[in-house]
Amino acid sequence: MDEQSGDSAHRKFREGYRWERVELHPYKDDGRSLFKDVTRQVLFSRPDLAGELRYFEIATGGFSTLERHEHVHAVLILRGTGTAIVGGEVIELKTNDIVTVPAMTWHQFRATRGEPLGFLCMVDAVRDRPQLPTEEDLAALRRDPAVARFLD
Amino acid sequence: MDEQSGDSAHRKFREGYRWERVELHPYKDDGRSLFKDVTRQVLFSRPDLAGELRYFEIATGGFSTLERHEHVHAVLILRGTGTAIVGGEVIELKTNDIVTVPAMTWHQFRATRGEPLGFLCMVDAVRDRPQLPTEEDLAALRRDPAVARFLD
Repeated sequence: MDEQSGDSAHRKFREGYRWERVELHPYKDDGRSLFKDVTRQVLFSRPDLAGELRYFEIATGGFSTLERHEHVHAVLILRGTGTAIVGGEVIELKTNDIVTVPAMTWHQFRATRGEPLGFLCMVDAVRDRPQLPTEEDLAALRRDPAVARFLD
Repeated sequence: MDEQSGDSAHRKFREGYRWERVELHPYKDDGRSLFKDVTRQVLFSRPDLAGELRYFEIATGGFSTLERHEHVHAVLILRGTGTAIVGGEVIELKTNDIVTVPAMTWHQFRATRGEPLGFLCMVDAVRDRPQLPTEEDLAALRRDPAVARFLD
């Protein structure tokens, strides 16, 4: 048994990419239309761990916020396939692929293949808030035709 | 591109649960017979991340070291099924299940089902070294019949 929470160390995986005793949340509650059809489950977040592990799932046709921040994302695709941009790189994602999002690098994930895109994301528990792109940032990103196609 | 390493942010998953540009290591190099048929791949370990994410794979019939330590393990089963003990709890593991190993809790993983057991393990980058059980520790663990069956 987990001495901290009093419950079992084990959380069984359930149908629909849910886990026992893990809440399902909308991705963010900011009310703006910067993302679409994304859910979040926090698999590990504890005062005695410096990292956190979250599971995000983007429904078919959905996408995460285009953003950047000082903290690093360490991503492993757990379910399905999709596409991402990380800086100037457009990435075709398959199940179990891993992706590093370095500090202050614009990134966005999309579920583009007629199926959900689910991924694990490890971050530091102590981290900065994301920044959104200005019009100038978007114009700079769009100078690369492949990135422009991804964004539009 | 990853500004730190100069290579792509993306590391493709390959046949046999390998990843591009990720080395395969034996689990430990201590030469004792405390584990059997375990490999380790470090998926994420960076100076700008407080956590590390590793992939361990135990071949059929293999097992990890029975040990404990102050640092916490956050585990997600990526491949196959198996069995574990975490403290006094014997756990039947299925793919995508998650397991928390709290501080100073004896734990061991076994691939018991005629297939490999592969799991992700998130830990703090700064962490203590594992401790091995004394004869007294083993005797105390074996007082629980289910744990004794697992260990023997």
